[in-house]
Amino acid sequence: MTTPSARLDRGVAAPVDESARAAARERLAALATPAGALGRLGDLAVWLAATRGGLSAVVEGVRCVVFAGDHGVAAYGASAYPPSVTAAMVRSVAAGTAGISVLARQHQVPVRVLDLGVDADLADLGPEVVSHKVRRGSAAIHLSDALSPDDVRRALAAGAEVATHEIAAGAQLLVAGDLGIGNTTAASALVGRSLGLAAAEVTGRGTGLDDAGLRRKTEIVRLALARVGGCDRDPVDELAALGGADLAATAGFYATAARAGVPVLLDGLISAAAALFADRLAPGAAAWFAAGHRSTEPAQWAALEALGLTPVLDLGMRLGEGSGALTALPVLRSAALLLAETTLLSEVLPR
Amino acid sequence: MTTPSARLDRGVAAPVDESARAAARERLAALATPAGALGRLGDLAVWLAATRGGLSAVVEGVRCVVFAGDHGVAAYGASAYPPSVTAAMVRSVAAGTAGISVLARQHQVPVRVLDLGVDADLADLGPEVVSHKVRRGSAAIHLSDALSPDDVRRALAAGAEVATHEIAAGAQLLVAGDLGIGNTTAASALVGRSLGLAAAEVTGRGTGLDDAGLRRKTEIVRLALARVGGCDRDPVDELAALGGADLAATAGFYATAARAGVPVLLDGLISAAAALFADRLAPGAAAWFAAGHRSTEPAQWAALEALGLTPVLDLGMRLGEGSGALTALPVLRSAALLLAETTLLSEVLPR
Repeated sequence: MTTPSARLDRGVAAPVDESARAAARERLAALATPAGALGRLGDLAVWLAATRGGLSAVVEGVRCVVFAGDHGVAAYGASAYPPSVTAAMVRSVAAGTAGISVLARQHQVPVRVLDLGVDADLADLGPEVVSHKVRRGSAAIHLSDALSPDDVRRALAAGAEVATHEIAAGAQLLVAGDLGIGNTTAASALVGRSLGLAAAEVTGRGTGLDDAGLRRKTEIVRLALARVGGCDRDPVDELAALGGADLAATAGFYATAARAGVPVLLDGLISAAAALFADRLAPGAAAWFAAGHRSTEPAQWAALEALGLTPVLDLGMRLGEGSGALTALPVLRSAALLLAETTLLSEVLPR
Repeated sequence: MTTPSARLDRGVAAPVDESARAAARERLAALATPAGALGRLGDLAVWLAATRGGLSAVVEGVRCVVFAGDHGVAAYGASAYPPSVTAAMVRSVAAGTAGISVLARQHQVPVRVLDLGVDADLADLGPEVVSHKVRRGSAAIHLSDALSPDDVRRALAAGAEVATHEIAAGAQLLVAGDLGIGNTTAASALVGRSLGLAAAEVTGRGTGLDDAGLRRKTEIVRLALARVGGCDRDPVDELAALGGADLAATAGFYATAARAGVPVLLDGLISAAAALFADRLAPGAAAWFAAGHRSTEPAQWAALEALGLTPVLDLGMRLGEGSGALTALPVLRSAALLLAETTLLSEVLPR
């Protein structure tokens, strides 16, 4: 599996700046606030300082890329919505009318959508949307591999290229969103496979399955995990077996961010599953990740826990698109501002 | 207790707009998002519509007032910080260097601090800070009543006047913050008294007491509750017995907002305790309240539960000053924007 083309997707993450982390902790303790009174905001501010090499009041240069793809399992009742919704929602993001578009405007974050594997021809949206397309849809993972290993490598390379492009354009904090009917099924299977969890432990209701739908989806995940078997596998093989081009590209995007030393704010299940793989592809990548929110999907909780991440928000959101991350963004911004700009106790109570 | 001057502080809350609530629910269900996918953001957007009489994308006209006061219990080891910190922090807010100042600038919210009962002369900060001052400090509640009933009525009237002023200045959403060493002791006692809870159930570590400090504080709350006894009491009497001028003014501020039909975003324990009293002074007031965050204080959780409110954030914050409310504000703004601006499913998937 270690071919020359795969090397693009390997290499450890950059180290975060431990001296900046220590200095941030020191300043946090000296603020004119009771010790620990900022709670998780203090932790987030310290993490930001470690990833940015020092204190910086403003979290700017945030950029969001939505990776879209269709999943073969959608034809087998894995989602509450028909596959045609994927392409329609890509058009909605491109038109600036989707939920993520609204949040991106609120927080002044450029957002773009990329078709990695949508089962439709979206060429009319222009090359910026379709130039990274790997294939139309993926195969149903309970019946066969979702992708070929070559598809995975192309998707990983696409994600890496997109991250490199965003960083060159000024990204200082990256967000990935997802769009794709059936994508929580693939992501659940990837998390189950990575963490050794059973289908029932990783399968959730996605876009809103009823009980019968949840049983159907769980059975698909169970069959998919059984089909792949228990042997150790390469992450590329696992992404081929259970993933999708959108998921693989997101993993490549995150891994490249971590290698380049650019922090990432994670979103929901798709994001967390991709982050697990990014941390395998670029060991140490998790140090560059913060978790924006806790979604309603059990596999997301398991993946975040495995990555050692505590979500900022817990609002029962399950929209995808990067919406949980962007909703959490102002809290991250508050954290950075509070650490940098709140006065020190020594200034308030001079001796 | 029903004197003419008390009438200012009585009267039920305005009704929220149930038809606007129903219309908002209908639009929420029609958005191009899976049903329920916005989670709590959907609930918040519907609440905002009900309080504002219809859909409105932008949550503007947010104004924050920090009510400051000292508490006699601080001299008895109820806090991890000395009483002198209160006046110093009032100066910090007035100078724009406190935590709440940082958050207010981030979210473009005007903030001002009012001395209701600080045990210091702050006249050099100008009449806008001290003109509502009721007294210097309050008595230690385990030994005697904190205030006289007349003090309480003056504080309630001050809060009402401040709310009226803010609304006249364009307030469409009000936030109250708190400043005052010892204030969580008084607020815990008020919550215990209102909800029939024991001292151990309502007493927390405040600014960061150690175990011995927590035992000391719990004993102060226990003695205060025992001193007041078990009979039914008027809210004004209870605020006099266990409260403080800052707490009473905050209750009056909230009650007036609810009577005027202006929504309120609550903060931590002081805020939640005052909200409990506002809902007694202006029955139905809780319909105008949303809870910004869950603090680390058990009495806050109990008060929010009694008011039927679920906090937006749960970040372990315990700074006070209104900081939890302002950190939650952008999430409220996201909710309103998402409901108003996200496209409808019927527009994404035309028949």
